[in-house]
Amino acid sequence: MINTNQYLKKIGEVAKKVSRLMAMASTQQKNDALSHLIQLLNSKTKIILKANEKDVKEAKKNKLDRAFIDRLIISSKTIDLMIKGIQNIIYLRDPIGEIMHLHMRPSGIQVGQMRVSIGVIGMIYESRPNITIDAASLSIKSGNAIILRGGSESIHSNIALSSLIHEALKKANLSTQAVQVIDLTDRSIVKGMIGLNDYIDVIIPRGGKSLTKMISDEATVPVIKHLDGNCHVFVDSDADLSKALKIIENSKTQRLGTCNTTESLLISKDIARDYLPKIVKMLNQHKVEVRGCKESLKLVKGIKAANEDDFYTEYLDAIISCKIVNDMDDAIHHINKYSSHHTDAIVTENHQHAMRFLKEVDSSSVMVNASTRLADGFEYGLGAEIGISTNKLHARGPVGLEGLTSLKYVVLGNGHIRK
Amino acid sequence: MINTNQYLKKIGEVAKKVSRLMAMASTQQKNDALSHLIQLLNSKTKIILKANEKDVKEAKKNKLDRAFIDRLIISSKTIDLMIKGIQNIIYLRDPIGEIMHLHMRPSGIQVGQMRVSIGVIGMIYESRPNITIDAASLSIKSGNAIILRGGSESIHSNIALSSLIHEALKKANLSTQAVQVIDLTDRSIVKGMIGLNDYIDVIIPRGGKSLTKMISDEATVPVIKHLDGNCHVFVDSDADLSKALKIIENSKTQRLGTCNTTESLLISKDIARDYLPKIVKMLNQHKVEVRGCKESLKLVKGIKAANEDDFYTEYLDAIISCKIVNDMDDAIHHINKYSSHHTDAIVTENHQHAMRFLKEVDSSSVMVNASTRLADGFEYGLGAEIGISTNKLHARGPVGLEGLTSLKYVVLGNGHIRK
Repeated sequence: MINTNQYLKKIGEVAKKVSRLMAMASTQQKNDALSHLIQLLNSKTKIILKANEKDVKEAKKNKLDRAFIDRLIISSKTIDLMIKGIQNIIYLRDPIGEIMHLHMRPSGIQVGQMRVSIGVIGMIYESRPNITIDAASLSIKSGNAIILRGGSESIHSNIALSSLIHEALKKANLSTQAVQVIDLTDRSIVKGMIGLNDYIDVIIPRGGKSLTKMISDEATVPVIKHLDGNCHVFVDSDADLSKALKIIENSKTQRLGTCNTTESLLISKDIARDYLPKIVKMLNQHKVEVRGCKESLKLVKGIKAANEDDFYTEYLDAIISCKIVNDMDDAIHHINKYSSHHTDAIVTENHQHAMRFLKEVDSSSVMVNASTRLADGFEYGLGAEIGISTNKLHARGPVGLEGLTSLKYVVLGNGHIRK
Repeated sequence: MINTNQYLKKIGEVAKKVSRLMAMASTQQKNDALSHLIQLLNSKTKIILKANEKDVKEAKKNKLDRAFIDRLIISSKTIDLMIKGIQNIIYLRDPIGEIMHLHMRPSGIQVGQMRVSIGVIGMIYESRPNITIDAASLSIKSGNAIILRGGSESIHSNIALSSLIHEALKKANLSTQAVQVIDLTDRSIVKGMIGLNDYIDVIIPRGGKSLTKMISDEATVPVIKHLDGNCHVFVDSDADLSKALKIIENSKTQRLGTCNTTESLLISKDIARDYLPKIVKMLNQHKVEVRGCKESLKLVKGIKAANEDDFYTEYLDAIISCKIVNDMDDAIHHINKYSSHHTDAIVTENHQHAMRFLKEVDSSSVMVNASTRLADGFEYGLGAEIGISTNKLHARGPVGLEGLTSLKYVVLGNGHIRK
């Protein structure tokens, strides 16, 4: 029987050692590894699809739910998206070694900050095997070592993908151990990883709220995470109705199950009488159930009564909560109280309102006249995304390459001492 | 009897509420509060000195050690330094609200990042009452609320200082509760604070290693900290001896008890025969005991034998460890193994060596031809320093105003949706 702690300690030791080498890897080597990975994904598509079929078959046999299986499936389109993702990462400027703000101090020294890799990343995720490729690619480019612990349901897919990653690393003369995939499906692995302070610098969980919450509550290693996405669209009294309709439609209905999907609609009382019926009609056409406050029930038919809990809820379903607010201040107050601080948007033509909303709403992404669905690493130009963070320390919002780096101070002197 | 948890919860709730107001405070208001604080420190110096005398008297009565009492004493010079510190903070640009990197995306949205305050800071420190003023001033300027828990030995000084801070806040029409001083000296307060996740966003400990270690091990609130400062100076084979002597002298002897004091000397074997005797002579003149590796004992008299533990030790005393290394690689390897990742310096005239040292040494400050004593917020131009961090996430190195802020994404659209 394998001892989980010994197993993890060994993996951690290897990762830490290899992370030093990865931190020194040249931009060319890192990009080479990624280019090789693209070639391998192209030439060995069949192997991946075959391994994935095993997982999907197993999942169906175990009667896992439809949405879960959807996330598990790798199609040739999924592989194309993986390749596109890697290509984006190759195009990104190498963040490592960049020196910023190097400036002279009155003492004569020059002080600046150098961007460096973090060290060892621990990634814990559930059913999406594309995370294996995304996370490994970002980790390679940012000069880190990574330990991947995917869901047991996607183990065959992950092992097949990791064998391509290892082949690509080898071809670029980088250590294959820069990306380690944990192939033990034992649940105790997760608990072990989040306490591996001596070896893992940061844990990134991707998956359901219960997994993330457990990790967040129990981890002694720092965690980059978000728990849920209770996102809001606020339609201000100075909103353009056509924009509001478009934005609410996209924010709520483009995809129901993502963290940047809008779950709550706020509407200024000055315009509710005119706007709300049109908005509810549009939502009903999309078969979205609206659960509204008392005032909203008076204005429109086809709204169910919302209770206090609704305003805290991330439905991930064809349901939206709705509240009529007095004004901007009321809206900001409501959002700062009920939001999960993920992504919140205002629809307004009023400049002062837009600026105040941006400043005062305390969320990782704050938007003016844009769909909350745009809160995404690709949309923000990060090239790729390893997760979204609602932390206030370190990375906040979509986390790309830079979120996987750290800064250190560099000081250049010529015999300078402290007076 | 007061219940610690209830007491802290109340303080936390107030801090959280006030932090929202502080986040919105204008630059003028924040600077006004700081200007008033300077005036009050000038006009009420006597009150401060008198309160401090009480603490010092008590400390002497309790036979606390000399160094401890030294740190506790407020002289009129200490007050001048506090005032100078506040003045620096007034001069600093307000970090809050700054929007960076706002750029167009192909989708038509503009994406940038806005610097915002963190929220609530918990500061836990020991005997230096000047931290009360430094931390409060930085917290005010960065738009945060702060909870200060100083050592019980400096309670009278801290209460006197905080009454001036409250008066200054009031004069600037800011809530006096933006700076709360915990006047309960109960030890359980510290344990309570570091678990107050719902109210405190970050804990900053300043004090001895045992306090910091306990906080670091047990806190569930994120901690910005360093444990110790086992700093190195490496004298490369291409070093200029006169610079090396000056830098080692300053790094080791300018002050013995600070975290950026050098505790270990590495010297390349190619120059050890010529350089080491001169360096040891200089150190001996300063009454610094040198504990060296076997090879160094062969080269110079007056060196004691070092054991393995010595190379891990932050002496905070007139002792330095010394090791002769084969070359650059050996030095970098030694530092990355034994250093506390605080501050490490190379003395060299060789450009490639300098650049490699900067890149490969994994410490919060890495220096070329400069004294490790220069690792300091004031010296780096941060205006002030709330602490030094050896964390890899969030702030690393001296932490000034920026370390007390967070970033959020801002997105400007005009009806943009996700395709």
